[in-house]
Amino acid sequence: MEFTENIVGRKIPKKINGRKLQPFMGLGQYTMPTHKAATRIRRRLSGETKLLQSIDEAIEKSELKSGMTISFHHHFRGGDNLMNLVIKKIAEKGIKNITLAPSSIHPVHAPLVKYVEDGTITNICCGVTGPVGDAISRGKLKGILTVRSHGGRARSIEDGDCRIDVAFIGAPTADEFGNLNGVDGKQACGPLGYMVPDAQFADMVIAVTNNLVPFPCNNIFINQNHVDYVVKIKEPIGNPDGIVSGTTRITRDPIRLGIAKTCVKVIEGSGLLKDRFSFQSGAGGITLAVTKFLSERMKDLDIKGSFGMGGSTSALVEMLESGLFTRILDVQAFDKVAIQSLKNNPNHIGIGASQYANIHSSGAAVNVLDTVVLGATEVDINFNVNVVTESDGRILHGIGGHQDTSEGAKLTIVALPLLRGRNPVIIDRVTTVTSPGMNIDVVVTDYGVAVNPECKFYNKLMKLKGINYMKIEELRDIAYELVGGAPDPIPFEERIVAIIEHRDGTILDVVCQIKE
Amino acid sequence: MEFTENIVGRKIPKKINGRKLQPFMGLGQYTMPTHKAATRIRRRLSGETKLLQSIDEAIEKSELKSGMTISFHHHFRGGDNLMNLVIKKIAEKGIKNITLAPSSIHPVHAPLVKYVEDGTITNICCGVTGPVGDAISRGKLKGILTVRSHGGRARSIEDGDCRIDVAFIGAPTADEFGNLNGVDGKQACGPLGYMVPDAQFADMVIAVTNNLVPFPCNNIFINQNHVDYVVKIKEPIGNPDGIVSGTTRITRDPIRLGIAKTCVKVIEGSGLLKDRFSFQSGAGGITLAVTKFLSERMKDLDIKGSFGMGGSTSALVEMLESGLFTRILDVQAFDKVAIQSLKNNPNHIGIGASQYANIHSSGAAVNVLDTVVLGATEVDINFNVNVVTESDGRILHGIGGHQDTSEGAKLTIVALPLLRGRNPVIIDRVTTVTSPGMNIDVVVTDYGVAVNPECKFYNKLMKLKGINYMKIEELRDIAYELVGGAPDPIPFEERIVAIIEHRDGTILDVVCQIKE
Repeated sequence: MEFTENIVGRKIPKKINGRKLQPFMGLGQYTMPTHKAATRIRRRLSGETKLLQSIDEAIEKSELKSGMTISFHHHFRGGDNLMNLVIKKIAEKGIKNITLAPSSIHPVHAPLVKYVEDGTITNICCGVTGPVGDAISRGKLKGILTVRSHGGRARSIEDGDCRIDVAFIGAPTADEFGNLNGVDGKQACGPLGYMVPDAQFADMVIAVTNNLVPFPCNNIFINQNHVDYVVKIKEPIGNPDGIVSGTTRITRDPIRLGIAKTCVKVIEGSGLLKDRFSFQSGAGGITLAVTKFLSERMKDLDIKGSFGMGGSTSALVEMLESGLFTRILDVQAFDKVAIQSLKNNPNHIGIGASQYANIHSSGAAVNVLDTVVLGATEVDINFNVNVVTESDGRILHGIGGHQDTSEGAKLTIVALPLLRGRNPVIIDRVTTVTSPGMNIDVVVTDYGVAVNPECKFYNKLMKLKGINYMKIEELRDIAYELVGGAPDPIPFEERIVAIIEHRDGTILDVVCQIKE
Repeated sequence: MEFTENIVGRKIPKKINGRKLQPFMGLGQYTMPTHKAATRIRRRLSGETKLLQSIDEAIEKSELKSGMTISFHHHFRGGDNLMNLVIKKIAEKGIKNITLAPSSIHPVHAPLVKYVEDGTITNICCGVTGPVGDAISRGKLKGILTVRSHGGRARSIEDGDCRIDVAFIGAPTADEFGNLNGVDGKQACGPLGYMVPDAQFADMVIAVTNNLVPFPCNNIFINQNHVDYVVKIKEPIGNPDGIVSGTTRITRDPIRLGIAKTCVKVIEGSGLLKDRFSFQSGAGGITLAVTKFLSERMKDLDIKGSFGMGGSTSALVEMLESGLFTRILDVQAFDKVAIQSLKNNPNHIGIGASQYANIHSSGAAVNVLDTVVLGATEVDINFNVNVVTESDGRILHGIGGHQDTSEGAKLTIVALPLLRGRNPVIIDRVTTVTSPGMNIDVVVTDYGVAVNPECKFYNKLMKLKGINYMKIEELRDIAYELVGGAPDPIPFEERIVAIIEHRDGTILDVVCQIKE
């Protein structure tokens, strides 16, 4: 296997599984394709119905065959049911060698490990959280995992890098003509943002719903032009209670609350916290706390922001309703308050994945974002971030919008405690580069704050009082000292099991099988 | 020039101006292309602005050159200002040989005749109402006019038959990042439905607005992903008062009111007028009266319809608000009440041209329409309709959604007085076939009602009491008798100045230069 080194110092194979890889080169430095994929022309004449009776019939009608690529959305997160259901049916039909390209895989998809092992699924394209990632790290996937960010996924589908044969869209509400609504019905899950590229570019689109309503439904998120068939099933497509998980609750840990307070000071110190301020935070415990403290600070300073971007939460909705933001831009809801707000408030605007974060569009919302606060599994002394692999080398998390927002926002803060259990988080070299250091401005920890010397707010921030600034190397030293030295290198096999794409389609890093 | 005859008996050249023509073959009988056009990939990085200072700068940035195809929408109808403004600038720059492909040309665009004559504009693709059509009929356009219906236009843009180099979108409200809103600002004109295909498929998209608001605007109809540049100008892009014209006012003529009443009886007689009934009418005087009488009848019968489709009017809004329909599907607003309703009522749903009527989509709303009532310039004894050419052979009207709704709806009624001035309207052979007779079910006139023997409601309708049924040949005979005989044949030159496409891209007819 021939390798080249990319600009973050990672060895990238020139070719893998028949695909030529372009190494990561930095923002806007790569050669861009000229055109998106051409989409299949459908023709529906008057009187032709889209209604089917079962998942089985849908698989049949879609002409789903061995070797095809299929997709699903993850808007139910931990409550998703549809993907397991459909894959089981596909396996029962003896279909093999599927490339699974959903918007994310979660622990709830543990039953899929069996279908990875038996060759039903041989390639996966998406972020993976939980047991499926673990299985991939142990070499059980015959092909390869391609990890993409939310924006990178949208780009890959639209550009034709990831050609989806059949997209299965879990639709909380649908009419018989294929208009899909995310905010009504018992399975309401909010915007169907991550499924918009699939609907537009997949060769075949199957909507699966528990709530079939007469044409035309309102609050249409994905419209009839893009849906080939509609199936009403009895089994719930997902459980909205599963959307809220550990990562969508505010932290109570005083250390993490302290980190959150520091983040707000840094944001203020950058000078960005003024009228028309815009903000995104993830749904993690620290970042939710940042939203809360930021909200209080904006009230104190009487600041009227422009937009908050979601993954939307009740905290963000509160900011909208109290006038701290004029709009929410929302690709995915993280709780029921957010879903109701999207339904009822015209200033809570649902957007698709490309509007959110696709670099190959005439403008992704991440481009005009002032500040984002993100988490990480590891950060290294070059500010490279790893959110995918654990300290034991296993793939356990997706990238989400990390790459997209960190590259787009004016000020990107990574907030995290210096240690996780006995693992140092600031280290010499991250196990896997999933967001390049050039896109990270500030790292806020409980032991101190490191500012990237390349950050355009560097001088301004360094003048800020009351912040315990350190070089990132100093943070690493403290971390190593606390745990009694640098961590041992992780033993990997030679076989590459995953590639980490940057949002532009170039390759940031690869992940090898762990040694057992 | 070699010709073939299509199934409505018109001679179609095999090739014209380098384009091979496929003769009209009937619903679903032609060979469909497999894929839509691939769209240009844009890339906007953080910090890149879309704001430009003037139309001149926009023309420059768009790299608009001689020989290119440009487009505009007609949502301001008689009040449009933008197209004249931009074409003047283009002409001043010495750019020639433009293919003009707006969604419609109106009498307000009379100043364009000069640019047709001087070779700035050499081809036109769209429906044409008024002086530009007259100029084309007199042979002044160097190339050819391709007349398409609203759905046919959407299809041609998406399929790549009509490749638009630069689309200029008049946007009542826009933010600096290219989100466009049709319902706010002094120039509010309603949905921007006809411009959705242009935004998605043009190589370059320029939004022109009088009302620039901070990002993100709400009520987004066309989003930032599809807009390359935004220009704020001082001259109004259009005058919303010009939307309402002679054709959007209800008739007071007792003859026309009588025709409207008969239409409602026919609709009821077909059995379609029951719960979940759906309906579209044009904005003409008779059809507006049909809406009014239908509304009264639905109230009497306590019928709860499903949707009314627009071109939306205050009459349709009233039906929505009084519960006669649960939704309005709206591609274009015809008055200010409709614009406000679209803005404020979540059951008034704005749709794009493809959702409305594109046959090459996985479902156009016209497909699920029960009844449409339309007008015509002429109808012949084969029920073929002409809405484009006048009885003197001149091109004076566009097709609008006539072909689309008549083909899609279960029951298509053409309503018109038997004479227009001294011209018989039911004749042996229409001057130009613009909707094929196979799609017309019933012709309602002030002298009697003719039902197409192919109409699937034929037997049911013939049993209906109180209707003066006649064969269509009888209506023609009466018309001829009233004016003292069949009209003289119109003298045409041999040169073809326009082709009439069916919505599927095949050719229904051609129009020749008039003899002067």
